[in-house]
Amino acid sequence: MQSYKRLMRLSEEAILLQSISAIMDWDMETYMPAKGVPLRGKQIAILETLNHERITDPQIEKLLDEIKSDNDYSKLSDVQKRNVYLIERNYLREVKVPTELISKLAKETTLATESWKKAKKDANFSIFQPNLEKVLELSKKRAAHIDPDKEPFDVFLDILEPGMDSKYLTSLFNDLKKQLIPIMNKCLEASNQPDLSLIHRQCPIETQQKLAIDIAKLVGYDLEAGRIDETEHPFTTGYFNDVRITTHYSLNDFSSSFFSVLHEAGHGIYEQNLNSDWIYQPVAEASSMGIHESQSRFFENVIGRSLEFWRFYLLRFKDLTGKTFADVELEPFVQALAAVRPTKIRVAADEVTYSLHIIVRYEIERDLLMEKIAVNELPVVWNQKMEEYLGVTIKNDAEGVLQDIHWAGGGFGYFPSYTLGNIIAAQFLAEMKRLLPNFSDLIEQGKISPIKAWLNEKVHSLSNLYDPLDLVKRVTGKALNISDHINYLEKKYSEIYGF
Amino acid sequence: MQSYKRLMRLSEEAILLQSISAIMDWDMETYMPAKGVPLRGKQIAILETLNHERITDPQIEKLLDEIKSDNDYSKLSDVQKRNVYLIERNYLREVKVPTELISKLAKETTLATESWKKAKKDANFSIFQPNLEKVLELSKKRAAHIDPDKEPFDVFLDILEPGMDSKYLTSLFNDLKKQLIPIMNKCLEASNQPDLSLIHRQCPIETQQKLAIDIAKLVGYDLEAGRIDETEHPFTTGYFNDVRITTHYSLNDFSSSFFSVLHEAGHGIYEQNLNSDWIYQPVAEASSMGIHESQSRFFENVIGRSLEFWRFYLLRFKDLTGKTFADVELEPFVQALAAVRPTKIRVAADEVTYSLHIIVRYEIERDLLMEKIAVNELPVVWNQKMEEYLGVTIKNDAEGVLQDIHWAGGGFGYFPSYTLGNIIAAQFLAEMKRLLPNFSDLIEQGKISPIKAWLNEKVHSLSNLYDPLDLVKRVTGKALNISDHINYLEKKYSEIYGF
Repeated sequence: MQSYKRLMRLSEEAILLQSISAIMDWDMETYMPAKGVPLRGKQIAILETLNHERITDPQIEKLLDEIKSDNDYSKLSDVQKRNVYLIERNYLREVKVPTELISKLAKETTLATESWKKAKKDANFSIFQPNLEKVLELSKKRAAHIDPDKEPFDVFLDILEPGMDSKYLTSLFNDLKKQLIPIMNKCLEASNQPDLSLIHRQCPIETQQKLAIDIAKLVGYDLEAGRIDETEHPFTTGYFNDVRITTHYSLNDFSSSFFSVLHEAGHGIYEQNLNSDWIYQPVAEASSMGIHESQSRFFENVIGRSLEFWRFYLLRFKDLTGKTFADVELEPFVQALAAVRPTKIRVAADEVTYSLHIIVRYEIERDLLMEKIAVNELPVVWNQKMEEYLGVTIKNDAEGVLQDIHWAGGGFGYFPSYTLGNIIAAQFLAEMKRLLPNFSDLIEQGKISPIKAWLNEKVHSLSNLYDPLDLVKRVTGKALNISDHINYLEKKYSEIYGF
Repeated sequence: MQSYKRLMRLSEEAILLQSISAIMDWDMETYMPAKGVPLRGKQIAILETLNHERITDPQIEKLLDEIKSDNDYSKLSDVQKRNVYLIERNYLREVKVPTELISKLAKETTLATESWKKAKKDANFSIFQPNLEKVLELSKKRAAHIDPDKEPFDVFLDILEPGMDSKYLTSLFNDLKKQLIPIMNKCLEASNQPDLSLIHRQCPIETQQKLAIDIAKLVGYDLEAGRIDETEHPFTTGYFNDVRITTHYSLNDFSSSFFSVLHEAGHGIYEQNLNSDWIYQPVAEASSMGIHESQSRFFENVIGRSLEFWRFYLLRFKDLTGKTFADVELEPFVQALAAVRPTKIRVAADEVTYSLHIIVRYEIERDLLMEKIAVNELPVVWNQKMEEYLGVTIKNDAEGVLQDIHWAGGGFGYFPSYTLGNIIAAQFLAEMKRLLPNFSDLIEQGKISPIKAWLNEKVHSLSNLYDPLDLVKRVTGKALNISDHINYLEKKYSEIYGF
């Protein structure tokens, strides 16, 4: 299979170039000197161009034809066939978009991001509006090139969550919304309310750095194959044995960095444990953003925000933090860490209300791309929905429609992955508990490695062998559905709040 | 000049790829997780391949022909003509070396570097010998491809120091050797000998980090366009507004890091101040390694190891270091910092004996490449020359022929640049003193910026517009010669040692 080998060589070059971009991006956010920005822009642009040349190389079409018409095609393994499929899928998508449109979009999203920063600072959507209009228009053109017969939103969604569309998501999210709001309200109405002051005690950054390393190691993030650095917004990037996570420290809220580290460590553990037999092949990538978020949320919420975990960790936590938290007691502390309260800001949201923030964005973005609402209507629609679903009154655009960077960068279709992650994490949890009946004991004893090993075997090692909906079915035996997530939330929060 | 533009676009891509490699190399030495090595090897290999494809692109020959036969050729500026010349020179050199030989050499130098590490650890040259033989053989083949009519050593030298050959260097270095040995001996025989214990006082790493930033800023290294990090061996890398330096801290010898920082800041200042009008063009690179070393040695030795500088800096140094050096007095302290004593190790050598270390290496390397000595004779010849020139007795290969990494990497022709740097720095100094008669006053007042501005204007901004020998003549009005260097050393050290 000479053609297969040649195809894989092209693909490996693209993957290596992407892994170089990841480090250059990481460096820009962490250690790059301030004046390095224009040079870095050019460096990243050339890496992207070289990558794009490889994934749209005219040879690919010929090689794909040769591979499929070859008598030996049937002798390819499932993994090899998946590689061929993934390369073809990506090729067919990318080759249809004119290079001119790609550079226009790159230019406009850069301008829009700058404009978004200014608009957010001034809490004034109208500054951002004309830029967002341009990005939206070009993004719709891009979608039309990829598939003129599909709704643009569905085109974007299919890139991030292959196999899903807005019809599917709307139905899933409508169900979810109906179930989440009552749980939120029961928490808010409970007589047993958390004392948040237990968390907001001054905790020196050096102590928080020690906590970050301790907790990342405890859950199995390999610091010999990764690092923890500080950036304004936490993120994970890298490839296989060089996967780096970042966090952001807040002096009066250790939990902000603590849960960021658990979250990013979840992403990092997934990336570090993708199937190394397939390294440098498309099949060795993550299955989807939703699967990725299931891993981060599993470590952040299912483990990190559980009573069982703190039964084990509280003593160690007190040891590491000296006198600061010496007097806190287990249950009130966990109640504070898992407290449910509607916020205006997505990234500050708890486990129950988080998905309501996502559903607000999903519905607005879907309607925007379907031209049911216009860009200039976004602030009003945003504020209405926030009031309706979360009961919060948005006072200005900075705490409302301008809070997220995604749209400025043309990142349409991205928000649902966060909620899919919540749903999938709970489905994995239910299956894990079935196969590891001592699951709670393991967590209470701080023994995370059998849990990590389960995820390694059932999820990580399958990498991108299956699309996300297939992977969920394969791992759990059930189609993706919200009932495990709802059961998990009801059980956990009725215990915490006593309703 | 469509052809010129196309040629420059190819060249710009190569330069950007090199600038990306620089950051990836820096990251490998500073923050990369331990397990990242194999991936980083592949990342660097693809960047090198892509760079090599561009500098040997078959289009280049055609474009060069078109440019030169075009009626508009005479309308090109000197800068544009220099770009054409530099691209052609590099193309003609690189295109002649078979890709197969390049990858063989890359493989053998990697093996030889590993073998050198082991041999050095075991102080046993015979472990390294077979690897060095292979690297030498392949390197000679490479030289034969580039120019079969030239001595291999001269081929390599011409890459690093365009316009120089071994005949020229042998004569220059013979003169230098004759003059340096008596100066060294006068220092050693002087009754006034330095008290080195003044330097070897415990100085916390945090204090040394503060000193590093203070001194780097003081001499004009721009920390908004650079950084200082810690690595095992100090180095400088980067491009224009992102030029990073590193140092290595030694608890009981602040001077090790202090002078490393000054040295690397010298390199960094050169790179940060190359002519930005020509950014991304070959003419905007450094003229040669020797010119580069002239800048690092200027800041390290001419400024940093001078009595004038410490007249200004000692007070500030005492402020920054607390009680540790509170009692030291100016003259004994500077005598200790500039102390002349033959060492076995090049990187620990002083300003007078340093070039003798280089001459030992130069003579051996030249004779090795001319097949006057064989690889297995290296330890004996090394030890003889060290005894003869420096009067030191080498007890084992680790402190002898195995101390430097250069040959393992096939870096033949590199050592002379260090001494050329010493010579050129003194020539620049003499000219600078002629044009800035208050030079010593400026240093005594800590006013380095007029001195840096002089170097910016006369040296840095010319970048690679001239080959090194032409540049020296242009800046100083004189051909490269050792007399300014010898005068500088005699004056300085007769004052310090009182001979």
